[in-house]
Amino acid sequence: MRMKCTISYDGHLFYGYQVQPGQRTVQDELEKALQTLHKAKERIPVVSSGRTDSGVHAVGQTIHFDSPLSIPEAKWPYALNALLPDDISVHNAEAVDDQFHARFSAKRKEYRYMIYRGRHPDVFKRHYAYHVPYDLDMEKVQEASRFLVGTHDFTSFCAIKTEVKDKVRTVYELEWSDTGDGLQMRIVGSGFLYNMVRIIAGTLLDVGTGKFSPGDIEKMILARSRDAAGRTAPAHGLYLWRVIYDN
Amino acid sequence: MRMKCTISYDGHLFYGYQVQPGQRTVQDELEKALQTLHKAKERIPVVSSGRTDSGVHAVGQTIHFDSPLSIPEAKWPYALNALLPDDISVHNAEAVDDQFHARFSAKRKEYRYMIYRGRHPDVFKRHYAYHVPYDLDMEKVQEASRFLVGTHDFTSFCAIKTEVKDKVRTVYELEWSDTGDGLQMRIVGSGFLYNMVRIIAGTLLDVGTGKFSPGDIEKMILARSRDAAGRTAPAHGLYLWRVIYDN
Repeated sequence: MRMKCTISYDGHLFYGYQVQPGQRTVQDELEKALQTLHKAKERIPVVSSGRTDSGVHAVGQTIHFDSPLSIPEAKWPYALNALLPDDISVHNAEAVDDQFHARFSAKRKEYRYMIYRGRHPDVFKRHYAYHVPYDLDMEKVQEASRFLVGTHDFTSFCAIKTEVKDKVRTVYELEWSDTGDGLQMRIVGSGFLYNMVRIIAGTLLDVGTGKFSPGDIEKMILARSRDAAGRTAPAHGLYLWRVIYDN
Repeated sequence: MRMKCTISYDGHLFYGYQVQPGQRTVQDELEKALQTLHKAKERIPVVSSGRTDSGVHAVGQTIHFDSPLSIPEAKWPYALNALLPDDISVHNAEAVDDQFHARFSAKRKEYRYMIYRGRHPDVFKRHYAYHVPYDLDMEKVQEASRFLVGTHDFTSFCAIKTEVKDKVRTVYELEWSDTGDGLQMRIVGSGFLYNMVRIIAGTLLDVGTGKFSPGDIEKMILARSRDAAGRTAPAHGLYLWRVIYDN
């Protein structure tokens, strides 16, 4: 039976999602919990919609794995949460067709980037939002954001070490909203390159401070060079919010 | 010059507010930061409105200390935050009369107790709200809460090891509100005994589950015995919200 699960994790004590020898990772904890649950001699492999970096959070990461156990869907989260550390939580589980693949079946992903705007640091947000106490021209940020929506070659907006060849992606939605004490950038796309959301957030904040003009974004896209865009916003403000599949 | 500061801290990595040999405490970090700032050979003593337990948070704890430095009020938070660890933050500083005393001048205190009601644990709230996934009869909780408002001997609602003799305190306000995904208990009083807010929260939750009836609260107060009341709710849901002084 193939199981699809929606999970959340607090990224701040993980060395990212993907297994790395000698490091604490989300995938490693998931596979260990499944191994214990199955009383298996070997790891139960877990496939996610994609990796997240060290410090990046997930509200709705999606995974799949194959299991011979006949546990009712509603009981799976309880069974796994009892074995997982308290910074990973399974919210939902459903039995799916064997054709379902957490990564390849994903149609769109939504990320959110959280910014705290108070004058002094908020201790409760230190791992969960980027502290930006300086002035931002949000009209310019909004204007700049519109240039990124659509299908573009995002070479300028991904880390140099990105291995994939095809850097054309589609951004369906990119919007900023006021959260009361801060800002939230919400972005929905067909898929995201390495560090892409963080470079978009950092560059748009650079527009907000006046370092770049909204029109510069268009030039950055055309430049197809990481040097053309702005800085990478820190990992701790970023959340993989949800992964969208057909149906 | 006597300085009054409003500070917040994330309690989860502290062994409470008050200095304890060999333990990481909020007071210890504050006094170390002040010593560094003053280039002093000895600690600069800090007086708070009162201690908070291990794991308890503060949104608006108040402290005072005496300093010969002539730093403008608005600069004090920046100077101290630069030296403090990132789980303590100074939000406000003002020069006050030498008669002001963070503890003795306090007229009222407000605490809040946060409860998360989702079915499965929320990883982002694991240190910041008590997870109560089971059903609660909030009408009964509200009814029970009214018995606690007023001036009473709160012996039944404080830890047995409480050293103060006079256990009469006044609760001015005690109200529950819906936070969307949980509940918040807000309590304002003349002062609180050791563990008093956590025992009140735990006992009222016991009313919500039907273990006690609202009328039992009246009997518990009259009993003047810790055994009469319910359980102590965990520390990580509790916040010292603000300390109220004259003016």
